[in-house]
Amino acid sequence: METTEQSHSAQFLDHQLQDIISLLEKQSIERNLVQRGPTINHDIIAAMLQNQQQTRLQEKLAQLHPADCALILESLPLDERQIVWSAIKSNHDGQILLEVSDAVRQTLISGMAVEELASVAGKLNTDEIADLAANLPKRTMLKILRSLNSEDRQHLNNILSYQETQVGALMDFGMITIRNDLTLKAITAYIRRLGKLPSHTDKLFVVDQNNIVLGILPLQRLLTHLPSQQVAEVMVTDFVRFKIDQETAEAARAFERYDLISAPVVDQEGKLQGRLCVDHILDYIREKSNEDLLSHAGVGEEEDLFSSVWKSAKNRWGWLLINIATAFASTRIIGVFEDIILQLVALASLMPIIAAMGGNTGNQTSMLIIRSLALGQVTPSNVKRMIKKELKLAIINGIFIGIIMGIISLLIYRDIALSIVMTTAMFINLIVAVIFGLSIPLLRHQFGKDPAVGTSVILTAITDSMGFFIFLGLASIFLIK
Amino acid sequence: METTEQSHSAQFLDHQLQDIISLLEKQSIERNLVQRGPTINHDIIAAMLQNQQQTRLQEKLAQLHPADCALILESLPLDERQIVWSAIKSNHDGQILLEVSDAVRQTLISGMAVEELASVAGKLNTDEIADLAANLPKRTMLKILRSLNSEDRQHLNNILSYQETQVGALMDFGMITIRNDLTLKAITAYIRRLGKLPSHTDKLFVVDQNNIVLGILPLQRLLTHLPSQQVAEVMVTDFVRFKIDQETAEAARAFERYDLISAPVVDQEGKLQGRLCVDHILDYIREKSNEDLLSHAGVGEEEDLFSSVWKSAKNRWGWLLINIATAFASTRIIGVFEDIILQLVALASLMPIIAAMGGNTGNQTSMLIIRSLALGQVTPSNVKRMIKKELKLAIINGIFIGIIMGIISLLIYRDIALSIVMTTAMFINLIVAVIFGLSIPLLRHQFGKDPAVGTSVILTAITDSMGFFIFLGLASIFLIK
Repeated sequence: METTEQSHSAQFLDHQLQDIISLLEKQSIERNLVQRGPTINHDIIAAMLQNQQQTRLQEKLAQLHPADCALILESLPLDERQIVWSAIKSNHDGQILLEVSDAVRQTLISGMAVEELASVAGKLNTDEIADLAANLPKRTMLKILRSLNSEDRQHLNNILSYQETQVGALMDFGMITIRNDLTLKAITAYIRRLGKLPSHTDKLFVVDQNNIVLGILPLQRLLTHLPSQQVAEVMVTDFVRFKIDQETAEAARAFERYDLISAPVVDQEGKLQGRLCVDHILDYIREKSNEDLLSHAGVGEEEDLFSSVWKSAKNRWGWLLINIATAFASTRIIGVFEDIILQLVALASLMPIIAAMGGNTGNQTSMLIIRSLALGQVTPSNVKRMIKKELKLAIINGIFIGIIMGIISLLIYRDIALSIVMTTAMFINLIVAVIFGLSIPLLRHQFGKDPAVGTSVILTAITDSMGFFIFLGLASIFLIK
Repeated sequence: METTEQSHSAQFLDHQLQDIISLLEKQSIERNLVQRGPTINHDIIAAMLQNQQQTRLQEKLAQLHPADCALILESLPLDERQIVWSAIKSNHDGQILLEVSDAVRQTLISGMAVEELASVAGKLNTDEIADLAANLPKRTMLKILRSLNSEDRQHLNNILSYQETQVGALMDFGMITIRNDLTLKAITAYIRRLGKLPSHTDKLFVVDQNNIVLGILPLQRLLTHLPSQQVAEVMVTDFVRFKIDQETAEAARAFERYDLISAPVVDQEGKLQGRLCVDHILDYIREKSNEDLLSHAGVGEEEDLFSSVWKSAKNRWGWLLINIATAFASTRIIGVFEDIILQLVALASLMPIIAAMGGNTGNQTSMLIIRSLALGQVTPSNVKRMIKKELKLAIINGIFIGIIMGIISLLIYRDIALSIVMTTAMFINLIVAVIFGLSIPLLRHQFGKDPAVGTSVILTAITDSMGFFIFLGLASIFLIK
């Protein structure tokens, strides 16, 4: 009896591990592609399944880069994720927590004890602890805060005092500062003594006794100039620095435009506060574009692929409820015109087309404006011209699409008056769509709101109701006796 | 008479320059924010307007970073763009052409003579010429090719032989290669002799006599190890390298995961072919996310804000024509049920709601799948679980939203049978929407196509027609006597 049970449970674990193994194998294929060092040996994986699975799994996972472990965790259903997570237990725990998405991080942290979490977080830099802070229980945070020295605690408080959209929240403290009266030889000796530079160190920051940034010394210059030269002679004084309360979006654009790897972050007086690196900017851009895409499709936040059904449902209901409201509101207009539909039932088939095409053209316009706003290309001096151009385009589109619609409906219903109403309604609704497609994001931007959020919902509600109203209204005037 | 005309034309130019100036001013504000060296003096700008405008403008522009000039050109209408472009004429011409978007580049190049273009391009690196190649007239390309030495010509041919989605098209040749039997001291001397390192050089590539990459030497290690040590002792052999024909999307994910700045690109035999840098990856990610957003909104390519109305129209018609076709096709179903609508006209008001809600939930599901596919999180082993979860969610959503719909329509029409049909139709259409929202992107991915392209169009067409069909079909069975 015992043996059967044992083999049963072994079989069950086998089954779960099979999935993990196939993931690891896929991982190994991907690694082969990017060719990062030794690839995973398939024999070892087969052996893992036979016996000593936990130990083997542990060894296997220990060889992986934290980002690869994170990807595996992301791709696993909750129960298997827990098995792998408890098998990981390495020095990289904290790094892995940093790499996974918010939703997955929550599931991993929820199963950990306060002490365990505090010890994991204790191995991280202050800027990394700050990244985790939102997901950590209060008791854990207090424990971590007590374990930090006063400088680190101040760093942590500093980062946490900025909003997610500000440079201050994204900076780290891995900067090397030097004085400008030293020779390059002294700097080289200093670096050798340090033994290791923080990642993404492509330049050293030159500061005065008040910690004000005077210039930067790219490692490149350190290597190409004579050791006897002074930092002051070699340093670059025309460099990009960011204010600590500046918008991250702006900083990201500067990184793209000036091809930066790292840059100093300063306070209002020019004092060095931290450092901004391209890897964080890359993460920021990816996250922002994911958010934009998801919010455009009406998904609240990033979702864990395997989060509970209820959690996912809640994440999607917000938008769906708004849509129910706008859908009922706009179709109430149809209710007003029910008599007209009874007299000419063809209207019922044609009205959704007017509404849908309005939504589509409006969305094209609004998306182009939103993108131009995001790239900083829209200025007060050119916005008038842009509006003029889009309106011209709307007129051309209106005539073109209106006539096509008219012809198709003529072919279907053989009713010239109906076709003319169709063409006219399409024309007017396209103009309406473009006007609102332009003005909603521009106005939101004007009032300091993110132009992307919600534009599509409001726009669709307007183009739907206006589409029904214009079409049925024109029909009631010109078609119904 | 002459004076009046002169002052007229001066006034006209003044007017145009005013716009440019305001842009420059805005530029200066932004520069202040990112604090990149000296800011633009407003007095100078005012003086520019008074007299000697062209010369002043020229001086002003010469001080700007190529990326800043590019932004100004992007934000200007066509005629003013030409004035500024002809005022630029600096050594940075080529860099600016590289920074502007494809659409704007076309407008700038179209006004240049073959000789002029060839001389501008001649100042660029081969990988930069390759970036411009698609926009250059054939005659210019021939002229440039003739002016290159055989190594550069081979590099250029190499890049151009890869597709835009492959690593080979994105690489550059700014790599420094060293042998592993040298001492660090010799390497340092070598770098000093070079005098300048290519931008984004964070590591040197260690190759053997056959140009096969053996390892990398991060500048950090060069600085922290003893000069007497050999490269072979200090170099890193566990590093990320990319195959030249690998997908760029994959490379971008590797850059994000392993926080890379640069990495070697090798051919099938491991021979060094080029280098991939984070600045190009950043541009790639930004461009890809822009494309995704725009294609989701039905805009063909990136559009120049001020390209001619006709050009923009053509860019948007493709999608709109497809939409006309799908809209007419799906509403033909309504035509089939016209008799039923005549018997119960409330159906005309309610049917667009069923269709719209189906489209919305389907889009939520498909967007989450598309994003997970893009992040490489979907594997054969977990796809079944994901499908199960989304279907469960669809059932919950269907019950929840269906009941809400039923209640609202009961309040409006006070007809219990109609409410039950509404609830049932909503439930079924949500299940249909999620099934197609799952399967369209997954199938496209299975067959090696981009899951994002077109999914939304096909999905909306299906949820619309199925929505109408299910609702009106149920109504004809249960409501009509």
